[in-house]
Amino acid sequence: MTSLGEAEFALLDQSWHDAITPDAARRMLIAAAQAFADKGYHATTTRDIAARAGMSPAAVYIHYRSKEDLLFQISKIGHERSLKLLTAVQDPDPADRMAATVAAFASWHAEFRTTARVVQYELGALSPEHHAVVAELRRKIETHVRVIVEDGVRSGAFQVPDQNGAALAVLSLCIDVARWYRPDGKRTPGEIGGLYADLVLRMLRPLG
Amino acid sequence: MTSLGEAEFALLDQSWHDAITPDAARRMLIAAAQAFADKGYHATTTRDIAARAGMSPAAVYIHYRSKEDLLFQISKIGHERSLKLLTAVQDPDPADRMAATVAAFASWHAEFRTTARVVQYELGALSPEHHAVVAELRRKIETHVRVIVEDGVRSGAFQVPDQNGAALAVLSLCIDVARWYRPDGKRTPGEIGGLYADLVLRMLRPLG
Repeated sequence: MTSLGEAEFALLDQSWHDAITPDAARRMLIAAAQAFADKGYHATTTRDIAARAGMSPAAVYIHYRSKEDLLFQISKIGHERSLKLLTAVQDPDPADRMAATVAAFASWHAEFRTTARVVQYELGALSPEHHAVVAELRRKIETHVRVIVEDGVRSGAFQVPDQNGAALAVLSLCIDVARWYRPDGKRTPGEIGGLYADLVLRMLRPLG
Repeated sequence: MTSLGEAEFALLDQSWHDAITPDAARRMLIAAAQAFADKGYHATTTRDIAARAGMSPAAVYIHYRSKEDLLFQISKIGHERSLKLLTAVQDPDPADRMAATVAAFASWHAEFRTTARVVQYELGALSPEHHAVVAELRRKIETHVRVIVEDGVRSGAFQVPDQNGAALAVLSLCIDVARWYRPDGKRTPGEIGGLYADLVLRMLRPLG
């Protein structure tokens, strides 16, 4: 995994400003996301995280119980933000709603690729209790997208033989942007959102 | 990341039988894939790998120069196998060829999910020289899929405004199966292949 770029770091700090206070707790969480992205969860120590945040190792434990707790907070906030992004899209027309949802979700995974990778690839390191909390958020995200597919099929805007399978593919497509997106690549996050919204509508439209 | 399941381990041993000899070298490579999947590349030592393979730490260096060399071999063989899988599909009709390619590539990423995750997520840990070798294999895989899209557009079987973008999405969809696939889930690797072949053809077909 590549290092958390300065741009994503700044965006993250801004995006998490209200969710995590005081500043020291947020700084530590961003340092943890950076360290996990660079070395992987298992190779990272709380000492590494403290050093990146410019704090003492003991300071970590003022705000977090453990390294796993830091991963959990990153994962929980990441999933909550995704869900909020999806539920903010309110277009009554299912095709418009799907296009806006895919555009937002795909471009978010480009913008916050490093954090998204940590969240997606280190799920197995969460404690069973924490994993259950994140799994519940994931179910809500999945249900949200499935409902748009179902609404579209009901209205005749979409036609798919396997609605769950189509919803799964739509989510997977957006999430995997975090794996391949490069900030120095050909497409901006917004352009990827537009491309993907178009491709998903093509995939779901009724056969001619 | 979850532990390499016994079924995938057995499949891998079988699949890599001709590519890696002697048996001890192959056993070590599979042990390395397991260890990287469990703990991440950076948290794994050659001692861990030797212990998993039931060999002495010194035995690792008979076959591999370093831990990074093990990762490179896994990555190289994984990419070579993917490419071979794709080039084996020979249907002259672009739609048939795309369907068979997507079915094979998606189901392969379900079967070999743990290995695929290591290969995809630890690319950043390769040395620049090794990264260049793998990047060249990735370019061949991308070109292969792009050519099918181009052939389909030329024949009128497909209609997409952004051919590179469509090829990127097709590959991304298949590769991300390795992230979400669970052997105890609702769909078999073959069923995922069938579902994805259908969705991709829907995505690429001409507008009504």
